[in-house]
Amino acid sequence: MNMFMEKAIENANKAFSKNEVPIGAVIVLDGKIISSGFNKREKTKNALHHAEIIAINKACKKLKSWRLENCEMYVTLEPCPMCAGALANARIKKVYFGANDRTSSDHLFEKILTSNRLNHKCEFQQLEEYQESCAKLLTKFFKQNRKS
Amino acid sequence: MNMFMEKAIENANKAFSKNEVPIGAVIVLDGKIISSGFNKREKTKNALHHAEIIAINKACKKLKSWRLENCEMYVTLEPCPMCAGALANARIKKVYFGANDRTSSDHLFEKILTSNRLNHKCEFQQLEEYQESCAKLLTKFFKQNRKS
Repeated sequence: MNMFMEKAIENANKAFSKNEVPIGAVIVLDGKIISSGFNKREKTKNALHHAEIIAINKACKKLKSWRLENCEMYVTLEPCPMCAGALANARIKKVYFGANDRTSSDHLFEKILTSNRLNHKCEFQQLEEYQESCAKLLTKFFKQNRKS
Repeated sequence: MNMFMEKAIENANKAFSKNEVPIGAVIVLDGKIISSGFNKREKTKNALHHAEIIAINKACKKLKSWRLENCEMYVTLEPCPMCAGALANARIKKVYFGANDRTSSDHLFEKILTSNRLNHKCEFQQLEEYQESCAKLLTKFFKQNRKS
């Protein structure tokens, strides 16, 4: 059991309970969670408010720096291009994700994080033991939403 | 002369005067500028604070919507992956940029904006008549910074 991913899932569940697409994230520095976020695009009516962006925003404020160089992120879903770019821009050391993004046939996530264009390469790793639980949460949400 | 790009350049100049990498943007709806932004990563110590993200954030607040469907952006430099992803997520109709990004050998910007992964395709066009002036502003900034 990975305590940090469990916390990210807790955040995803908070999003679910508020009728938002259930994705959650935490940022960890020196073994401690320094910020967290869950998707709140509908509530705040803001296209930028993905879990990852909210967590990065809070971490920059907390550390008073745009460089999150020794920080790691745990997020329930493989990040979208915006969030992948933000991870690189914030110089996050490594991102661990739960479910992979099945719509991502063009591997943009990997292309962005391994791009020579960016000054920083953020490492990435799927925690495969979380694939099922993180994906199920999303499926459940979309099924429920289609019904209502 | 493109009035909107001229305004974006004005914003880039504001960034320059505050010792930030000089990039500026505006968002236009129905022929009017509804929001603008310039890079302030150093001042706010926030990795997310690129010109485009600031402008999108303001536009979402102004329109009380995460969907900026009929909006267009004018920005002085070809957007980075984070900002390209944000343009798609915000469903911006079209982005016009001044200088192209010479470091972008892997064409990530185009790959992100034409990806089938995203629900929305944001059109894009370089205003080639602005390549030189927008690029020069950046060169001048980096030269000055290297000296000091």
